[in-house]
Amino acid sequence: MQNDKYLVNFAPYMTKLELINQINEKRSLLCVGLDTEISKLPAHLPKNIEGIFEFNKNIIKATLPYSVAYKINTAFYEQYGADGWQCMNETLQLIPRNCFTIADAKRGDIGNTSSMYARAFFETMNFDAITVAPYMGKDSLQPFFEFKNKWVICLGLTSNKGSEDFQLLNVNNRPLYEEVMLKTSEWGNHENLMFVTGATKANQLKHLRDLFPEFFFLVPGVGAQGGSVIDVCENAKTSFGGLLINSSRGIIYASNGEDYAEKAKIEAQTIQSACNIS
Amino acid sequence: MQNDKYLVNFAPYMTKLELINQINEKRSLLCVGLDTEISKLPAHLPKNIEGIFEFNKNIIKATLPYSVAYKINTAFYEQYGADGWQCMNETLQLIPRNCFTIADAKRGDIGNTSSMYARAFFETMNFDAITVAPYMGKDSLQPFFEFKNKWVICLGLTSNKGSEDFQLLNVNNRPLYEEVMLKTSEWGNHENLMFVTGATKANQLKHLRDLFPEFFFLVPGVGAQGGSVIDVCENAKTSFGGLLINSSRGIIYASNGEDYAEKAKIEAQTIQSACNIS
Repeated sequence: MQNDKYLVNFAPYMTKLELINQINEKRSLLCVGLDTEISKLPAHLPKNIEGIFEFNKNIIKATLPYSVAYKINTAFYEQYGADGWQCMNETLQLIPRNCFTIADAKRGDIGNTSSMYARAFFETMNFDAITVAPYMGKDSLQPFFEFKNKWVICLGLTSNKGSEDFQLLNVNNRPLYEEVMLKTSEWGNHENLMFVTGATKANQLKHLRDLFPEFFFLVPGVGAQGGSVIDVCENAKTSFGGLLINSSRGIIYASNGEDYAEKAKIEAQTIQSACNIS
Repeated sequence: MQNDKYLVNFAPYMTKLELINQINEKRSLLCVGLDTEISKLPAHLPKNIEGIFEFNKNIIKATLPYSVAYKINTAFYEQYGADGWQCMNETLQLIPRNCFTIADAKRGDIGNTSSMYARAFFETMNFDAITVAPYMGKDSLQPFFEFKNKWVICLGLTSNKGSEDFQLLNVNNRPLYEEVMLKTSEWGNHENLMFVTGATKANQLKHLRDLFPEFFFLVPGVGAQGGSVIDVCENAKTSFGGLLINSSRGIIYASNGEDYAEKAKIEAQTIQSACNIS
């Protein structure tokens, strides 16, 4: 039974090569963020968990030709308790296995506990990647690296105002976020580790690309948060792509009418086009 | 209906004063960590979610005379998917409202998203406190502070080996964890903010107590991780207590036989006694 799934899809897991293949096939670096909330659903959809699922299904279907990755932020689902958690997993099942799937969970704990998180997101659910917070150091990330063909996406320089509070502090003659990325890149490698680098920090992106030419960056902050796809690509796109550019609200809430999926598709296509993959 | 709950319990929420009252009443600083796993349940219990619930119920009942707080680490429940999430909430309901309840979740995201986490743990579930990771700065913590009579417990100096990787880095002539605690203490105050400070770092605890005399510290790392209750108390106990000393594995897995609750009770009593609250 398990094998049937792979017959109709492409790969049982997303290696760096598989991801690059998808980028070239769709000529896109777009990652769609499914940050869905009941209060923001279009008026004609039921205002409950079923409404979220229906909404996600149509957003995925509409954006699939332009999106190589989907990111589910756990916060949006946890607010609805166990039903929300179930909806997160069911949404994940809707995404074809040749798209890269990210649990945007920002987890991290002592090793013993991080192992449980890894199990939750890589086994109980079948995400390709999870975002992690680096504050607790090596043994908090190690358990995630132990899963073959899975990815760790470590917070580097985030897109929010609060990134200035600690990430920019000077340590060892460099900002903390650079120190975090340098150390983390010794624990993983460009085939199982990516970094979160905010689109609102285009100047720093170029420098980070020079430091980490082989690594994928997950770039949030375009659209609602103000970053520009063209700036991001100019500063950090590589010959193999090297970027997953995330848009959440800008795509999924492009319209709050019955045409939400159609409008999401147009927004997705706009970003895909701006990526300018030849 | 809502009010009935408060008639049989003590307080609708845990202020600093309520917590101190409990500490004095039970003469204890003990926090029991319900890090329950199916694979570690005693042989006579069912090896499923119901087994976890039964186990938690008996552990809570046995340790209640000696414990002022209970900490539920989300990782252990998330590994079982939506059923695990449900079990976490049902376990929370078992804990009397005059005990301090902590979601050990180590969350933190951009403001918009942290609001959803706050809702998940403070509204959908009714925890008194949540642990948060500080890497993303002020706007990632602010939404938690906006909930009245709820607590933020920010990672300071953690108990694991990996704490050395970033937390000990020198910034502004002090270690990063001190900088984190100083900045965070400007965003919250001693009535809505605590810090995680590991028991394995007894030397630093004394210095941190001098810096933050009014704040509660949540201290993990006694028992399985090697820290000593007596050392922790000598270095960081205050006139009002000022500590929640957490033990998880050392208590809940004190025996894996049918006497697990009885043995947990003995371990809890041992820690309560070592706290030496007069």
